[in-house]
Amino acid sequence: MKTQLADFNTNLSEWFNDIVLKAELADYAPVKGCMVIRPYGYALWENIQKFMDPLIKQHGVDNAYFPLFIPISYFEKEKEHAEGFSPELAVVTVGGGKELAEKLAVRPTSEMMMYEMYKKWFGSWRDLPVRMNQWCNVVRWEKRTYLFLRTSEFLWQEGHCAHLTSEENMAEVIWAIKMYQQTYNELMGMYGIIGVKSNAEKFAGGSKTYTFESLMPNGKSLQACTSHDLGQNFSKSIDWTVQDQKGEKAMPWQNSWGFSTRSIGGLIMSHGDEKGLVLPPNIAPIQIVIVPIPNHQKALSKSQELISQLSSYRVKLDTVEGETAGAKFNKWELKGIPIRLEIGDRDVDSNTVIICRRDTGEKQTVQLPELNQIIESLLKEIQQNLFEKHKKFTQDNTFTVDNYDDFKKVMETTRGFIKAHWCENPECEAQIKTDTKATTRCLPIDAAKEEGSCVHCSQPSHHRWLFGLSY
Amino acid sequence: MKTQLADFNTNLSEWFNDIVLKAELADYAPVKGCMVIRPYGYALWENIQKFMDPLIKQHGVDNAYFPLFIPISYFEKEKEHAEGFSPELAVVTVGGGKELAEKLAVRPTSEMMMYEMYKKWFGSWRDLPVRMNQWCNVVRWEKRTYLFLRTSEFLWQEGHCAHLTSEENMAEVIWAIKMYQQTYNELMGMYGIIGVKSNAEKFAGGSKTYTFESLMPNGKSLQACTSHDLGQNFSKSIDWTVQDQKGEKAMPWQNSWGFSTRSIGGLIMSHGDEKGLVLPPNIAPIQIVIVPIPNHQKALSKSQELISQLSSYRVKLDTVEGETAGAKFNKWELKGIPIRLEIGDRDVDSNTVIICRRDTGEKQTVQLPELNQIIESLLKEIQQNLFEKHKKFTQDNTFTVDNYDDFKKVMETTRGFIKAHWCENPECEAQIKTDTKATTRCLPIDAAKEEGSCVHCSQPSHHRWLFGLSY
Repeated sequence: MKTQLADFNTNLSEWFNDIVLKAELADYAPVKGCMVIRPYGYALWENIQKFMDPLIKQHGVDNAYFPLFIPISYFEKEKEHAEGFSPELAVVTVGGGKELAEKLAVRPTSEMMMYEMYKKWFGSWRDLPVRMNQWCNVVRWEKRTYLFLRTSEFLWQEGHCAHLTSEENMAEVIWAIKMYQQTYNELMGMYGIIGVKSNAEKFAGGSKTYTFESLMPNGKSLQACTSHDLGQNFSKSIDWTVQDQKGEKAMPWQNSWGFSTRSIGGLIMSHGDEKGLVLPPNIAPIQIVIVPIPNHQKALSKSQELISQLSSYRVKLDTVEGETAGAKFNKWELKGIPIRLEIGDRDVDSNTVIICRRDTGEKQTVQLPELNQIIESLLKEIQQNLFEKHKKFTQDNTFTVDNYDDFKKVMETTRGFIKAHWCENPECEAQIKTDTKATTRCLPIDAAKEEGSCVHCSQPSHHRWLFGLSY
Repeated sequence: MKTQLADFNTNLSEWFNDIVLKAELADYAPVKGCMVIRPYGYALWENIQKFMDPLIKQHGVDNAYFPLFIPISYFEKEKEHAEGFSPELAVVTVGGGKELAEKLAVRPTSEMMMYEMYKKWFGSWRDLPVRMNQWCNVVRWEKRTYLFLRTSEFLWQEGHCAHLTSEENMAEVIWAIKMYQQTYNELMGMYGIIGVKSNAEKFAGGSKTYTFESLMPNGKSLQACTSHDLGQNFSKSIDWTVQDQKGEKAMPWQNSWGFSTRSIGGLIMSHGDEKGLVLPPNIAPIQIVIVPIPNHQKALSKSQELISQLSSYRVKLDTVEGETAGAKFNKWELKGIPIRLEIGDRDVDSNTVIICRRDTGEKQTVQLPELNQIIESLLKEIQQNLFEKHKKFTQDNTFTVDNYDDFKKVMETTRGFIKAHWCENPECEAQIKTDTKATTRCLPIDAAKEEGSCVHCSQPSHHRWLFGLSY
């Protein structure tokens, strides 16, 4: 393995691979395009689950588990869905030593499987709304893969709900994307823009897709999760009706929403720096590392006391032998631990400890009796600071553009988000992509109505869309 | 669906299928041999995870995630392991529309995948012990399947550890099986016997397998989880060595241990009765159901108050309209809720409520101010009662047998566990199976040394083994 990280500012993608491997977040699997999530990376996913699962349950969604294997024929029922996913399928053709009569897809997403079961189970308006979620693995065969950001197998949660009315259904589509926004903002310290995708960019088989778009340090936009209004498309394709209050047949309205391990890729990039990871305290598997100066005996005993004094936090004591203090500091900076406590024998004598912040590198000496109180507020401050920094970065790199030359110039130089008028004609969208590589990221949910003319064709437009380079 | 359950006492296997479907624990999936775990069933699995995951972490095991797909060639490295699993593999031959150069097995277990990564990551005695666990899905193609008990895809956790010494390794094998025993006893109210498997029954590729064997109401034994001492078999097969303290090459000793959704099948059978499920309070997704008598208005308001009074428990209020009180009682008895509270307007007037226990059917009227205290002790009592009942059933159906005629007679009549001398010759074991269908379940961990002669061939034997019919 390389001893140095690639440069964060000039070579983010190589820095990213380096840090994922060196911080032991994940590794390449023997199967091309797949990855192993190592304990330090998996702990991030567990903290996402701990934050999000209660929010999902409080909303009235039940967890369940649907099968990994989906008969290939199921994919042919919803045409757009089939066209979207068929090229990406991993297919099981042999089971128990025999060629299978019907080939099985390894699930790339579970719409078709779950909705067939919903149809079997729920036939009355009394059964609605139906709200289920599963935490599971899915497989989409990818040609170009990146650790966390795009892997052939990934972990996610997928929520699938059904309602009697379109209004209730849409309200839930919005609830889900806002719940994701809350997770990004509060847990992961990441800023982003919620909005609706263009038809070209929406989910295969859905009616409308809401996204959370987050700007990465290299000016590319990460589609960080999605919430789909499926309309009645899927209930029509499998002919699922329920009896409504009047005894008549009604077709349920459906939505689905997913949040995956891709989010961890965004987390790593959003806050990282030339020294390595920078983790927001709320998601950090280790919030505080205590480093007693090597061979300082009093400092070691005092550090062991501190472990119990700080037991309400996620704390690690570094007692590894044969490393210098400097090597230890570098190691924990690389791993992005929010707070490092340094303690030597002279600190013990003066009843003090040195606190070092990972996000700013600032150090301060504090009296031990004040330690818990200072840590409490410092963790909050670091969490807040990382979010504000990411928000400011995003705003500083969002450009309002009114002509195509400026559009192209931004995409060739600074990159970032562009707010520009677009006539909503897919041909313009395609041409802009060809010319600049930029795609429509979304129409922001809070975009004000504003009359203007398309940045590409000058036809009338009513909103500014968000454009950017896709990750 | 059938309206009645099959008879619990005379037709357990049909009762089992009926209750799994009717209580909405699970359903058959469109793919043969797979199942859908519905929310009520999945909540049981979540409660198992909540109980067991902290025990695993406290022991120093880290959660991680390894890929679903394993190159077929990996299975050929450990010969016994390959022979054991090859007939059960589901094989992916097509990915992204193309025939794959190397076929991929959908993991039936992750020894080979994880240990190849361990070999890559860990090369020094300083890296040991290694302790990792994953919660995931696995696939073993099965010809005859039963909901929960044997499905082609199932959920489990698999722990995989490596040590420098055989002693440390064995200590952990025992730790794991005892951790499982604790889960069965304390969470699931199930009794069972820990012991070591015979060579014929052990894990393919392992050295020794420890099992927890639990007796079901029809006298069959459920292998309810296993912990394997793998010796150095796998490190040899992949040539994994680490440098020991003296700078010399050492081969790690390894163990693996797994607990699956099969356990839920055991839970259902162990405590069930002719009315349906009976769930121990510690694992019950709903511990208390409140049933206000239909159309009693005061009772409905009082019930809503009770929800907050009982907020430290998992409580459900049944406000479904159009059902009689009797229908509601049956519905919740079927679902196995440990405690039912019945409340009518006259109960409100007298400030009382009726408490009904699911395990014994006993009812008592209690004063509302005493309710929480009574529920607190009643939940403990029910939990304890179910465990004691299952323990007594197991002991009442364990027979010490000294000749082959008695052995055969037990297996033809009452069934149950048999404690009998066996010479440990696999030919005797095979003949006993042919004659009686009984297999060695285990040599109990606490079996006293006792000189005797094999129940089949009369050769010397030093222990009584446990025999039974396999589920």
